[in-house]
Amino acid sequence: MGGDAVVVIGGPCSVESEAQILSAARIVKAAGGNALRGGAFKPRSSPYSFQGMGRKGLELLALARKETGLPIVTEAMDSEGAQMVAEVADCIQIGARNMQNYSLLKTVGRMKKPVLLKRGMAATINELLLSAEYILAEGNDKVILCERGVRSFDPAARNMFDLTAIPIVHRLSHLPIIADPSHGTGLRDKVIPMARAAVAAGADGVLIEVHPEPDRALSDGAQSLYPEQFTQLVGELRAVAAAIGRSIPPAKTGTA
Amino acid sequence: MGGDAVVVIGGPCSVESEAQILSAARIVKAAGGNALRGGAFKPRSSPYSFQGMGRKGLELLALARKETGLPIVTEAMDSEGAQMVAEVADCIQIGARNMQNYSLLKTVGRMKKPVLLKRGMAATINELLLSAEYILAEGNDKVILCERGVRSFDPAARNMFDLTAIPIVHRLSHLPIIADPSHGTGLRDKVIPMARAAVAAGADGVLIEVHPEPDRALSDGAQSLYPEQFTQLVGELRAVAAAIGRSIPPAKTGTA
Amino acid sequence: MGGDAVVVIGGPCSVESEAQILSAARIVKAAGGNALRGGAFKPRSSPYSFQGMGRKGLELLALARKETGLPIVTEAMDSEGAQMVAEVADCIQIGARNMQNYSLLKTVGRMKKPVLLKRGMAATINELLLSAEYILAEGNDKVILCERGVRSFDPAARNMFDLTAIPIVHRLSHLPIIADPSHGTGLRDKVIPMARAAVAAGADGVLIEVHPEPDRALSDGAQSLYPEQFTQLVGELRAVAAAIGRSIPPAKTGTA
Amino acid sequence: MGGDAVVVIGGPCSVESEAQILSAARIVKAAGGNALRGGAFKPRSSPYSFQGMGRKGLELLALARKETGLPIVTEAMDSEGAQMVAEVADCIQIGARNMQNYSLLKTVGRMKKPVLLKRGMAATINELLLSAEYILAEGNDKVILCERGVRSFDPAARNMFDLTAIPIVHRLSHLPIIADPSHGTGLRDKVIPMARAAVAAGADGVLIEVHPEPDRALSDGAQSLYPEQFTQLVGELRAVAAAIGRSIPPAKTGTA
Repeated sequence: MGGDAVVVIGGPCSVESEAQILSAARIVKAAGGNALRGGAFKPRSSPYSFQGMGRKGLELLALARKETGLPIVTEAMDSEGAQMVAEVADCIQIGARNMQNYSLLKTVGRMKKPVLLKRGMAATINELLLSAEYILAEGNDKVILCERGVRSFDPAARNMFDLTAIPIVHRLSHLPIIADPSHGTGLRDKVIPMARAAVAAGADGVLIEVHPEPDRALSDGAQSLYPEQFTQLVGELRAVAAAIGRSIPPAKTGTA
Repeated sequence: MGGDAVVVIGGPCSVESEAQILSAARIVKAAGGNALRGGAFKPRSSPYSFQGMGRKGLELLALARKETGLPIVTEAMDSEGAQMVAEVADCIQIGARNMQNYSLLKTVGRMKKPVLLKRGMAATINELLLSAEYILAEGNDKVILCERGVRSFDPAARNMFDLTAIPIVHRLSHLPIIADPSHGTGLRDKVIPMARAAVAAGADGVLIEVHPEPDRALSDGAQSLYPEQFTQLVGELRAVAAAIGRSIPPAKTGTA
Repeated sequence: MGGDAVVVIGGPCSVESEAQILSAARIVKAAGGNALRGGAFKPRSSPYSFQGMGRKGLELLALARKETGLPIVTEAMDSEGAQMVAEVADCIQIGARNMQNYSLLKTVGRMKKPVLLKRGMAATINELLLSAEYILAEGNDKVILCERGVRSFDPAARNMFDLTAIPIVHRLSHLPIIADPSHGTGLRDKVIPMARAAVAAGADGVLIEVHPEPDRALSDGAQSLYPEQFTQLVGELRAVAAAIGRSIPPAKTGTA
Repeated sequence: MGGDAVVVIGGPCSVESEAQILSAARIVKAAGGNALRGGAFKPRSSPYSFQGMGRKGLELLALARKETGLPIVTEAMDSEGAQMVAEVADCIQIGARNMQNYSLLKTVGRMKKPVLLKRGMAATINELLLSAEYILAEGNDKVILCERGVRSFDPAARNMFDLTAIPIVHRLSHLPIIADPSHGTGLRDKVIPMARAAVAAGADGVLIEVHPEPDRALSDGAQSLYPEQFTQLVGELRAVAAAIGRSIPPAKTGTA
């Protein structure tokens, strides 16, 4: 990441099956996406919700990379899981709920893999930067920040998507920052315009939930794009990026 | 307003003098802006802050229109002031603090002039639409909504600029909605990227504070663009609008 | 108000009929309340909701005072209405939506009647004090502030009841501050414990919605106490007030 | 905990030295407090702030218990630390930042010690209860919830202290809930009135920061009570508790 590139990371909320994640990976690849996301370990508000496939999910992500060549971004929820994730993933995601889980931040700070650090649900931008500092201070300087919406009083959207965080971070830090309009809005039909807005605001990338069959998703179906919407989105983002002198890198060819 | 047009409304927070408002109007006109904003009646949190020039300010706005041909947008704070504003302005602004001042909404609902209704500081989008309904129910259907940022926990910006309001309003209502990144961020160097983001999100226009000499402004200087920044902004907005199949209307020529 | 007194103001959200407001007034009087509240002019988010009885409602409030001797607190929504309210009411209420309606604040600032100024839905305590300053600066020093809950992200209650505002105001200002747990919580069964909490925090009074038949109320029924709950509440507040060296003044006897 | 008892837990933010924690324990004991709090592992927004004494801090807490007989409440930040904490503490605290650290919740859910679970900085009450469910579902039913203030737009206090959470939790759950006015307000002189308010609202206990020398505290000095304030507070809480038919349990005599 860096420079004029605007990377597109797509994929389902959760890895659900071999067929599902391979299908998702092909959709992302065909549309011109740059990396595949998908959760194997899922932090859920309720202990009775689907908690992810765990280690098996990681194996399926590795398979999807083998087939498509797309680098893998997936979440770690604790130090033990981070070791497993680091063996497979190209980038370790720290979710919003764990932005101030300092033990976990230190653990991934001692790893060599890039870390995607999501802003907490009511974290100030300053606190996001201080959490990044926990990772940097351990020696890992490959930190990518992510705006994913914060808590607000308005039930019209799942979160309030704070795109001003992008130019604020760019002013205060050298770290790249991407945006996640899927969680930022929680509403499928708002993802496309808000992804465009993120790129126009200067985001260094976007993180988009897309699922082969959103209506059957085990989590976050209501905010996941249909495959054809994802393809349309990448086209629109190319146009907006070009308008401000940036570009989405060409999809890598071949396998990993 | 309407269709594919993205209108650019520019001008100072307050009318301060003949020289200032004429200079501002020329800057807006030269840059390709479509209308002039400027407050004659200023709602201020403290009774000891500058409260605006009042009727004299309205006269100066009329003068600026006569010279440049730019239509005038200016705020009314009460029913009496609304009568005065309606005599001069092409569009009557209702500020965030008065979004639920129902007596004022009914008053402007009985007028023939378009009304620019700003979202309250902690109003839900549903409440914004219900406040518009107070104007529509009186017979005035020329209502333009405006997202201008809402209260949040993060002091990094003056407000939290909720651009998702734009596609949400477009889904729920036929009313146009513009965005005010000057109040939405409160930070001059964040206005340009966030105005671009507003257009990319689908805004039907932007409301931008620009001042001939921001450092001498009697109000909102810290979020007012320098003239050359405004010119640059209009150029960038043209490019982003074009990327999504929209355009900024050409500046009208001649005088009113 | 002032000194060690903790005043109890009770009554329905809206004046609905002669029978309803007289019944409510008798309930408040019998329970030991000190004043009667009831809205004749109602600010409602939707223009299609019940908007209050207007002038007729004021006449019914005057009748209730004549019978019970209870002073009247009722809301004014605009300058014209304020004149009508001032002729009848013993205390003019400015609602949360109008906390920054500066024209209205100046109007009541030129009147002789006490003003009950409610905190706006997302107003800081500093802004509440600055709005009071608009009234004080016009010469009316009988301003009573009111905490009534602010907007929050949690749908568990209608608003977030910010009782810390009470000791903060007491530190920054000489003005009395009361609390409105009916709007502060929006939940009938939470009103009693939170009214107790308000008194324990040092509130100079409480504003409580009570209705002869809450299930038939035209507005705010879900947060209105049943008559017997109001009676119980006053008893509990006497005990809490006594525990911190304060007291609810005895109900006045006789008629106005 | 439970029944009519209102427990008072006092102590410094951090364990800083043997002299400091022993002094604090004696202050709490002498004033009639029921348990001693003090952090050995400190979650801090910045990696460059004081991070706590770690295992040595736990040893000093054990020493303070030996001398005063007060049970110990102290925080665990990760699974490894939880093992250490569980060896010493009588109650394991999970801080606001870790309310949704599900791995940690499951770890303490498999322990036998009571868990004090603090509400996250922008957690809904429903999410707090769901996080408790993670602990309960592992077999540990000794969960105590804690309201400690949430994020808000008003800088007048460190957090917005949401005391309505107390009756809401009591309605939805059988779990006890205590309140932390030290973090809830962040302002020393607001702690006493808001602790009274918490008890009046029905809290099953209060968590109070008190330090032998607040002006020398390594963390949270500005919200820590002076010893004489803590003594005064316990007296005031006894009076408020009595007013609502509850009581602070007598301090245990003898050593552990």
